[in-house]
Amino acid sequence: MRHIESIERLIKAFAGLPGIGEKTAARLAVFILNAKKEYAEELAGAIAGVKEAVRLCRVCAGFSNSDVCPLCADGSRDASTVCVVGDYRDMVAIEASGSYRGAYHILHGLIVPLRGRGPEEIKIKELVERAKTNGIREVILGMPFNAEGETTALYIKKVLEPFGIRLTRIATGVPAGSLIEYMDPRTLGRALEGRKEA
Amino acid sequence: MRHIESIERLIKAFAGLPGIGEKTAARLAVFILNAKKEYAEELAGAIAGVKEAVRLCRVCAGFSNSDVCPLCADGSRDASTVCVVGDYRDMVAIEASGSYRGAYHILHGLIVPLRGRGPEEIKIKELVERAKTNGIREVILGMPFNAEGETTALYIKKVLEPFGIRLTRIATGVPAGSLIEYMDPRTLGRALEGRKEA
Repeated sequence: MRHIESIERLIKAFAGLPGIGEKTAARLAVFILNAKKEYAEELAGAIAGVKEAVRLCRVCAGFSNSDVCPLCADGSRDASTVCVVGDYRDMVAIEASGSYRGAYHILHGLIVPLRGRGPEEIKIKELVERAKTNGIREVILGMPFNAEGETTALYIKKVLEPFGIRLTRIATGVPAGSLIEYMDPRTLGRALEGRKEA
Repeated sequence: MRHIESIERLIKAFAGLPGIGEKTAARLAVFILNAKKEYAEELAGAIAGVKEAVRLCRVCAGFSNSDVCPLCADGSRDASTVCVVGDYRDMVAIEASGSYRGAYHILHGLIVPLRGRGPEEIKIKELVERAKTNGIREVILGMPFNAEGETTALYIKKVLEPFGIRLTRIATGVPAGSLIEYMDPRTLGRALEGRKEA
């Protein structure tokens, strides 16, 4: 059976979202069909609205509704320390920890050579420009400890080394609250390697 | 950290979709932020558009872009046999089997007393009206074999009995291709009960 054209169009559009397959897209489409008109209008408006309202911050490349994002414009933060992260959500997660008062740089992706995503596809050039002009004393590499994160961290280390900026990497080890017995061998190996005086 | 207002609005709207939690909603929002503007516009347009274009068919209560849906208007189908299903996607699934040439009636839900969804919340009144006026010879109860499906089937059986229409129920048993060893006891019990001459 062919769906009605406008339903087919909606299923196809939903299926374009990450992690949403054909079946889930159909479920979401039927949900929209059954939902209150106000909700459908709100969702449509929010999607269109975010593309209108949001651009990239001129300093950190994070999402912003102005030329410079509120975080970069916040004079109470330490602009000389820049934590480099792969994704906007990584920044949100680090902010939620409440233990960082420096600036950020959002790469919008990590280097994945196998998928043809090289350094020029992400905001590394912008980071280098920032290192050239601003009074940055420390760059914290906040990438995850997987192949893509390590590749990206290594690459950034290489391109930033000429600037004489202190380069650090966030710590790796056993997550808070996790049981040792459930940890993978690599995490435990790194936790042992990185051990500190108790 | 507070999200930018328009991002916050989008995350909240996405989180209103079924099966989408706060984390997934944030992931979808970032995807939209990084996506091509054309895609975001297409998704927003498809959501708004479907609510404009689609209404319920006057005959079967299925989704339609006209007063009577293409399926009900199709003269080559047997309008005297009506398969009652809970959801639009159930109809799509049955149509995909290619073995049914009758009509449908879409309930838009099943009876769930515990969640306060009684018979009057779904399109049963419309089914009774249809039984009164149309030349229906058989009603096939196409609900699933769970508590809600059984409750709904039983209720419809009761309200349609006075009309002297033949009432049937789709067969229950072991799904095609499934291994016996993985079947739950209830399914196997029903498959044995419903056994046929080989």
